[in-house]
Amino acid sequence: MQLYDAVSPLDYRYYGSDWELFERLKPYVTEKAYVGYLAKVEAALVKTMAKYGICNQAIAQDVENACSDIDPEAVYAEEQRIQHNIRALVNCIKRKVSQEANPYLHLFATSADIMDTASALRFKDLFHKVVIPDLLQLESLLIGLARQSKDMGQTGRTHGQYAVPITFGHTWAEYVSRLGNRIELIHQAAGNLRGQLSGAVGVSNSLALVAKQYKLSPLQFERDVLAELGLTPSTHSTQIVEPEYVTDLAYAVASAFGVLANLADDVRHLERSEISELREADDPDRVGSSTMPHKVNPKDYENVKSLWKAFMPRMTTLFLDQISEHQRDLTNSASGRFVMELFVGFISAVKRLNKSLAKIEVNQEKVRYHLDQTKETSIAEGIYTLLALSGLPTGYEYIHKLSSRCRMSGERLVDALQSDPTMQVFWRNLPEEQKDVLLNPEKYTGIAAEKTAACCDYWEGRLKNM
Amino acid sequence: MQLYDAVSPLDYRYYGSDWELFERLKPYVTEKAYVGYLAKVEAALVKTMAKYGICNQAIAQDVENACSDIDPEAVYAEEQRIQHNIRALVNCIKRKVSQEANPYLHLFATSADIMDTASALRFKDLFHKVVIPDLLQLESLLIGLARQSKDMGQTGRTHGQYAVPITFGHTWAEYVSRLGNRIELIHQAAGNLRGQLSGAVGVSNSLALVAKQYKLSPLQFERDVLAELGLTPSTHSTQIVEPEYVTDLAYAVASAFGVLANLADDVRHLERSEISELREADDPDRVGSSTMPHKVNPKDYENVKSLWKAFMPRMTTLFLDQISEHQRDLTNSASGRFVMELFVGFISAVKRLNKSLAKIEVNQEKVRYHLDQTKETSIAEGIYTLLALSGLPTGYEYIHKLSSRCRMSGERLVDALQSDPTMQVFWRNLPEEQKDVLLNPEKYTGIAAEKTAACCDYWEGRLKNM
Amino acid sequence: MQLYDAVSPLDYRYYGSDWELFERLKPYVTEKAYVGYLAKVEAALVKTMAKYGICNQAIAQDVENACSDIDPEAVYAEEQRIQHNIRALVNCIKRKVSQEANPYLHLFATSADIMDTASALRFKDLFHKVVIPDLLQLESLLIGLARQSKDMGQTGRTHGQYAVPITFGHTWAEYVSRLGNRIELIHQAAGNLRGQLSGAVGVSNSLALVAKQYKLSPLQFERDVLAELGLTPSTHSTQIVEPEYVTDLAYAVASAFGVLANLADDVRHLERSEISELREADDPDRVGSSTMPHKVNPKDYENVKSLWKAFMPRMTTLFLDQISEHQRDLTNSASGRFVMELFVGFISAVKRLNKSLAKIEVNQEKVRYHLDQTKETSIAEGIYTLLALSGLPTGYEYIHKLSSRCRMSGERLVDALQSDPTMQVFWRNLPEEQKDVLLNPEKYTGIAAEKTAACCDYWEGRLKNM
Amino acid sequence: MQLYDAVSPLDYRYYGSDWELFERLKPYVTEKAYVGYLAKVEAALVKTMAKYGICNQAIAQDVENACSDIDPEAVYAEEQRIQHNIRALVNCIKRKVSQEANPYLHLFATSADIMDTASALRFKDLFHKVVIPDLLQLESLLIGLARQSKDMGQTGRTHGQYAVPITFGHTWAEYVSRLGNRIELIHQAAGNLRGQLSGAVGVSNSLALVAKQYKLSPLQFERDVLAELGLTPSTHSTQIVEPEYVTDLAYAVASAFGVLANLADDVRHLERSEISELREADDPDRVGSSTMPHKVNPKDYENVKSLWKAFMPRMTTLFLDQISEHQRDLTNSASGRFVMELFVGFISAVKRLNKSLAKIEVNQEKVRYHLDQTKETSIAEGIYTLLALSGLPTGYEYIHKLSSRCRMSGERLVDALQSDPTMQVFWRNLPEEQKDVLLNPEKYTGIAAEKTAACCDYWEGRLKNM
Repeated sequence: MQLYDAVSPLDYRYYGSDWELFERLKPYVTEKAYVGYLAKVEAALVKTMAKYGICNQAIAQDVENACSDIDPEAVYAEEQRIQHNIRALVNCIKRKVSQEANPYLHLFATSADIMDTASALRFKDLFHKVVIPDLLQLESLLIGLARQSKDMGQTGRTHGQYAVPITFGHTWAEYVSRLGNRIELIHQAAGNLRGQLSGAVGVSNSLALVAKQYKLSPLQFERDVLAELGLTPSTHSTQIVEPEYVTDLAYAVASAFGVLANLADDVRHLERSEISELREADDPDRVGSSTMPHKVNPKDYENVKSLWKAFMPRMTTLFLDQISEHQRDLTNSASGRFVMELFVGFISAVKRLNKSLAKIEVNQEKVRYHLDQTKETSIAEGIYTLLALSGLPTGYEYIHKLSSRCRMSGERLVDALQSDPTMQVFWRNLPEEQKDVLLNPEKYTGIAAEKTAACCDYWEGRLKNM
Repeated sequence: MQLYDAVSPLDYRYYGSDWELFERLKPYVTEKAYVGYLAKVEAALVKTMAKYGICNQAIAQDVENACSDIDPEAVYAEEQRIQHNIRALVNCIKRKVSQEANPYLHLFATSADIMDTASALRFKDLFHKVVIPDLLQLESLLIGLARQSKDMGQTGRTHGQYAVPITFGHTWAEYVSRLGNRIELIHQAAGNLRGQLSGAVGVSNSLALVAKQYKLSPLQFERDVLAELGLTPSTHSTQIVEPEYVTDLAYAVASAFGVLANLADDVRHLERSEISELREADDPDRVGSSTMPHKVNPKDYENVKSLWKAFMPRMTTLFLDQISEHQRDLTNSASGRFVMELFVGFISAVKRLNKSLAKIEVNQEKVRYHLDQTKETSIAEGIYTLLALSGLPTGYEYIHKLSSRCRMSGERLVDALQSDPTMQVFWRNLPEEQKDVLLNPEKYTGIAAEKTAACCDYWEGRLKNM
Repeated sequence: MQLYDAVSPLDYRYYGSDWELFERLKPYVTEKAYVGYLAKVEAALVKTMAKYGICNQAIAQDVENACSDIDPEAVYAEEQRIQHNIRALVNCIKRKVSQEANPYLHLFATSADIMDTASALRFKDLFHKVVIPDLLQLESLLIGLARQSKDMGQTGRTHGQYAVPITFGHTWAEYVSRLGNRIELIHQAAGNLRGQLSGAVGVSNSLALVAKQYKLSPLQFERDVLAELGLTPSTHSTQIVEPEYVTDLAYAVASAFGVLANLADDVRHLERSEISELREADDPDRVGSSTMPHKVNPKDYENVKSLWKAFMPRMTTLFLDQISEHQRDLTNSASGRFVMELFVGFISAVKRLNKSLAKIEVNQEKVRYHLDQTKETSIAEGIYTLLALSGLPTGYEYIHKLSSRCRMSGERLVDALQSDPTMQVFWRNLPEEQKDVLLNPEKYTGIAAEKTAACCDYWEGRLKNM
Repeated sequence: MQLYDAVSPLDYRYYGSDWELFERLKPYVTEKAYVGYLAKVEAALVKTMAKYGICNQAIAQDVENACSDIDPEAVYAEEQRIQHNIRALVNCIKRKVSQEANPYLHLFATSADIMDTASALRFKDLFHKVVIPDLLQLESLLIGLARQSKDMGQTGRTHGQYAVPITFGHTWAEYVSRLGNRIELIHQAAGNLRGQLSGAVGVSNSLALVAKQYKLSPLQFERDVLAELGLTPSTHSTQIVEPEYVTDLAYAVASAFGVLANLADDVRHLERSEISELREADDPDRVGSSTMPHKVNPKDYENVKSLWKAFMPRMTTLFLDQISEHQRDLTNSASGRFVMELFVGFISAVKRLNKSLAKIEVNQEKVRYHLDQTKETSIAEGIYTLLALSGLPTGYEYIHKLSSRCRMSGERLVDALQSDPTMQVFWRNLPEEQKDVLLNPEKYTGIAAEKTAACCDYWEGRLKNM
């Protein structure tokens, strides 16, 4: 198959056409990689047999060598013939080992032992070697952005309306915190993936048959096989590992994807023409529109939001795959293969953000312009608070009406306050320090800078030893 | 990229590893195919210009030739440089045409004009040339199965419990009808896909600028471009075609997928060991289990159910993509690329059923065995009805209690009826014909055969001219 | 239960606290209404029996009277005792009719006959009497808004960036068209709901047992019962009506909800402080924020978007409910009850928009302000087009670079054109009429006005006889 | 509103019609309860002010008294007037307190401070007082069932086919383990809910304005208010608490619901007529079918599966609600109200299982019957294993062919083994002990009993101090 004969946008575009990503992900995410992981589990099984004296060390070594280099094409060709993927793999391995080694291959195991364990293993590797490092890079970028602008006043916005001020750092800190929280969850879920070696229905029937003969405990044998691979067993198993370990990981990713999507939305909106607080660094070669030659579009952030729309709904597949009749019904077989796509889509989005946020620019002039629009709001909120503390029971209503009148007439609230017979005395008596804060939105930013700094320190500390 | 370097199960397995399907789908579903369709739309645009005397025929021909053979790799390489997929395509076409042709390329169009129109076109082709023919084949198979067994008594099952009898044909007829209904919906939605040629924000700004000069109406010009491609325009457009045309097609497919999933579930269950009314034809090479050498599993039906679990949730992406801010926000760009996967997953499931149902076998002995278990139910329902018609107000309760007693004691209901003082007279007086129906579940099948035949005739008739 | 003891936000807030809506919906959407519809179906069944001479007219009348006033509390109390909802209903009816009528109640029917038919009936009534009229009112409001502002220039926006101009009418026309299209789909799906009267497994076993005796055809009998209620039968049935009739209606609603959500998003954004092209009429009593006394928030549009988020995902339940094992497995019983909530949520959103859009105001000054920002874009696109038509092959690139330079330097594109040695001659030679369009964005609106008018006429025409 | 005027099945049926559940849930799940929780947060705020000397203790007491008894009807009536729910609540409280207390109400807070904190609080109470206790009861029931039947041989089933044996206890142990795991996750997520008191945009603007005056740190003040309520603050906040705390809890519930759904499916299938390994205790009053008087249906398990279909998809709403523009866009306001429904639906399903599983009966005769059907499989798997260990490289293929031949001819595998020239010597030489296991499926259950016991002990231990 040529690259552009692919039907999946991941294959022909987001992963397959991005050579750097392709090379970095190839060892974990491809079908070829999966076949390699399956073989690795088969090898660990025979190695453990040798440990227990079921077969000899030479056989284990023979199998390990054979398993280190399996051609997926050969496996698929054999599957075509016999209609069973794992038996096909076993047959391919058998062809590469001695006659003596042959009977020990896949012994005691059911296909799901190999597949579920291999999946756990490759997911774990993928997360530890790619996903988490990339996320930590993104977190670090966000921390940098937050610290840089922790004191830069910015209008707060709720309901899409100017509200009272924050700082730009506080805007970024939201994502430092929410993403940090998700990184921890992903780390925990990836570290909790499990394998199994418990036979056709989860109770090690055939291994138990010879347990006495080889002085082994099937449960210990399972732990040993998995320990070879750096895994531990599922608490209970039927033919399959309990599905929730993978469901939890998928959820951790899906919910982290939601955080990325929110970040992307916020940046997109801050880049919109009418706001322009953020902007893309200009690249003279880049084309913004095929017909409007002058445009610079937030396409990376649109892409992240769009990938989220493509992948978030797949969580439903994971929920459906929690259900399997009796010891297993295999209706999770095809669907389970698609889980990797969710992870690759997520990695692609993280990479996109790492690239874009590294070169994002703040347009301070525009930030200041919008901040200035909160003058009325800042005064209104502040005055209402001070009125209340002075004991006036109807402060809120009073200011509400005054603001309403100003909005109609175009008068400035501060002028209205000073001309209003009730308010003018109150205003005159305010300490200068408070007046100063009220009149300067860049000072009416509450504890934004302090919270931003604390948030960055907190997450940097928690994640540093990951 | 090698086949097994792919990350998508569609690419490396369900489509890419199935050579027959690969060849049949390649002209429509790949990125290469898409680039070809995009070029076709660009050519239709210039051809229409020539028709209006905006450029000459030689230019149109030059462009058409160039567009008939575009290399997707070159387009991707150019996109890599300029970061815009359609402008990249245009640049690639430009390199292949004369200097004179150059300025007319993509004139008046926005990228979305080309992309939305090309998508409509390739979806339409795919559905008319592959999806609908394959579905009609499946419908025909089901009609065959239904007719063959329209008179074969079978137990009805509700709540997973034996109920009163039907015929096996009636079981198949359910799917003849539900699938027939979905084929019509798919046919209608695929026929209702729309294109557009309305410029950057849907109002043909640049074309209108020269409308008088070329004596053209932009709306007629749009209709002409699309007519070249066998399409009609979206009722309204912004930068994009109204999303609901594609949403409707995706829904038609998703809901048809649900019918396939239900069919697959029913067959799976009818093949389960304890039922065994259906069975797979045995293939001596096929391996059922990697550890239990004797098993024959309903893997095709498991696969269909599993694909449904993978693809049905993607409908949510389509719902999310209905929303685009103002004249368009481009967050449907990446996600929109994944729609084709839904269709390919569906085609794969249809193909699987066509292959499997062609060789499914009914185990008549088992069918008869289970039918016999409905004796009690048939009598109970029938007698209750006849009691009611005889005017007994408490017939239902009476039979309910009698049945309950029989279930406890193990007595047969027919014996209980004949020994019960109230019932024995009633029973004795029943016409022999009715007794015969009540005592023989294979006769107590109501209008199953009649409905089955009518259902097959009805759908055969409706779909025959599709 | 008191109103505020409810757990569902529909009950205690969106429907139950809105007295006008409550009164209007009560006849269709409540459990009480459902019990009434169930009884109506039971009555139609006995009435048809009388027609066939199975029972006499007096009995049918007796049953009809009894069915016209059933107390849901009594039915629930009886269900509590016997654990079966329809048998409970039947028992309640029995208590109100003569001994003679008693045996004919529910005869030949299975619970699903009554329930599926009653659901079809009440959905149909709800859609014809509430949903479609409310949607037509909304459509009419949108048509009014579109016509009013069909000539009012407005900036087009793509990627959240100013693009080339449209008119405000064209913005509204998008929703005239998309909503019009959905109204037709809803109308069609609501008109295609089906009932059934085919017994426990869909083959009329007990009715067929006495068909000869009463000279009836079970299929005709079913048609007659349903005709009493204004319905037609499901093409095929098992214990249940084919699920796709309701799935199609739910889809029509879910996709229409997506159109409302997009409309709500667009209005929300056009009301945001930085844009302010639309605004809420001010209500002095209304509180915008509990702490910022001056705010006016787009809460109706937020509500509509939010309801969409709550209800759109429920489409997945409908897809899951397409699957039922064999003749039925009853796992659609509880879930099927929630379908009505989707419709009520949708009605609530439609009502909200009808209320809000009736009083929305356009801030023409702001519209004009943003339109003026598209001067550069309009010129760039227009000039590039004219350059191309003059035969310049590199017009796009030339303007792209010039625009880029202007964006950096702050120079106006029109000035750059006139000082650029290549361009100035070209510019000078342009017809005044074209220059005028290029320099005045309110004239560079293409066919926006024409398309808007045509769109309004088209949909008004199509929907007028609904 | 009368009970049966409700539109939500939760209100009129699953919660509202179940008086025991209604009474138990009322303090947490109703709108009335919510208003109570909101008032509690307002009271805690003023109490903290008193602590800091902002107001005096008498005022705090006055407010606390007023807040302990708020009438939701009055709040709704006020909201009707002023269009703001929290300001309406505040106005209602104000009417009940002295003039002096009035200005301190809601001071420094934004509506979301009160609402998000109140939600966290009532969710936490609901989970600790109802959900987790009910889940522990279910876990305990499952442990009881598992222990009772830990040694009872049962056929294993994969692909819906008889596989090799397990024990019935192992079947139950699957759910002991998976549910135990989910209980831990739910417990953790419910314990991690957070509140906030950080003002309109999350940076305590108005509180910071007077921080020096009252010698307070806004962050400490927030911690103090929340400590009054037993909560801690969100790591970061904008106008709202970070959404992921609630998303995590909803996910924990949704995934636990999947475990219940799988359990329900397994029981349903084990109760189906052809299997009958489990059965419902008979209740003479209960009606199984409105037309087939003898049926006993697994309606509780159907209900649980069906509720899962209704509620699982709602997780998508939670994912959508992760996204909020800038400091908040309020499109999560209506949708956020529906989260409680997910919890109530889940509780209803748990209760249903607690009731049903308490009276489930195992039909040992049927269990034994199906177990006996695995004789062939057990021998096939066991012999293949022993053949392999004897060094035969083609054991799997040999047995595969022999089994295939037996399936065709109807010969028993054990007989074929003894007549086959290659196998008979091997068979003869097997130790009697192994022959005994191979020939008696009830002995070929591997480590099922051991794993079951260990699983029950493990989860009992982990959950006992919850």
